[in-house]
Amino acid sequence: MEPSVAAVDAVARLIERRETLATAESLTGGLVAATLVEIPGVSAVFRGGLVVYATELKAVLAGVPATLLAERGPVDPDVAKALATGARERCGADWGIATTGVAGPDPQDGKPVGLVYVAVAGPHGTDVRELKLAGNRTVIRTKSVTAVLSLLSEKLQERSQAA
Amino acid sequence: MEPSVAAVDAVARLIERRETLATAESLTGGLVAATLVEIPGVSAVFRGGLVVYATELKAVLAGVPATLLAERGPVDPDVAKALATGARERCGADWGIATTGVAGPDPQDGKPVGLVYVAVAGPHGTDVRELKLAGNRTVIRTKSVTAVLSLLSEKLQERSQAA
Repeated sequence: MEPSVAAVDAVARLIERRETLATAESLTGGLVAATLVEIPGVSAVFRGGLVVYATELKAVLAGVPATLLAERGPVDPDVAKALATGARERCGADWGIATTGVAGPDPQDGKPVGLVYVAVAGPHGTDVRELKLAGNRTVIRTKSVTAVLSLLSEKLQERSQAA
Repeated sequence: MEPSVAAVDAVARLIERRETLATAESLTGGLVAATLVEIPGVSAVFRGGLVVYATELKAVLAGVPATLLAERGPVDPDVAKALATGARERCGADWGIATTGVAGPDPQDGKPVGLVYVAVAGPHGTDVRELKLAGNRTVIRTKSVTAVLSLLSEKLQERSQAA
């Protein structure tokens, strides 16, 4: 997909700060990473990521506690934060971003279609945002990609203002 | 991107065989995985994958031998095979598929733009195919996604005929 203004802004800020980025994706299934690699100059800051589509891989690849996954299921704000932290740590990046949610067409583990959590883990902490999205699978995924890159852009902006 | 006929065929064959799939992607940066998750019913067979954009992550996440990467660089047929094997093993899947190559606009480590290796690792061995692609970054990536999913479809077809 075409990178959003927020995505291009986030990459420009990372290049300026000489900081790196990694991803951990559930419902977006690689689309956040694929969107990032379309941005010119991204190879200076983007290290790579994890596509954790199966619930078990959220634990195996990204280090999300298995107890958390068993208690809450994969669509949960703390799982999103653990995924972002896992991306950051496993890929050796300054920033990790993550998505988890229900793309549909059916609800999942009692969670409604369109409920999505996006998270950002950085050198100064972790943030998560809850989204309630409408649309088909493709639309929900596309909006999730935009949302996580917007959250990253906001957090980078805050760091620039704090510095 | 829109899944190709080969992609849809590969997923249908995996569902029929009750076998699972994982990815390891360098130049395609998540686009193979993102294409797969667009196919209805894929969650029964697709486990997830690794986006190994930075060379170091090919070793850290996918287990490609660091000596091989140091001697040959990331754009190499044996690196592609090791990535496919790594995807299969690290994600606990029956089949692993991988891409590595030069999307451009500049050559990389002496390798020309458009030189791409796609590989498939399955229960019965590993195969790699060399591609010499023309076009801009997006076109080279899109053709690489189609090529690796076509190779997977061919290998699954061979297994069905062998059975």
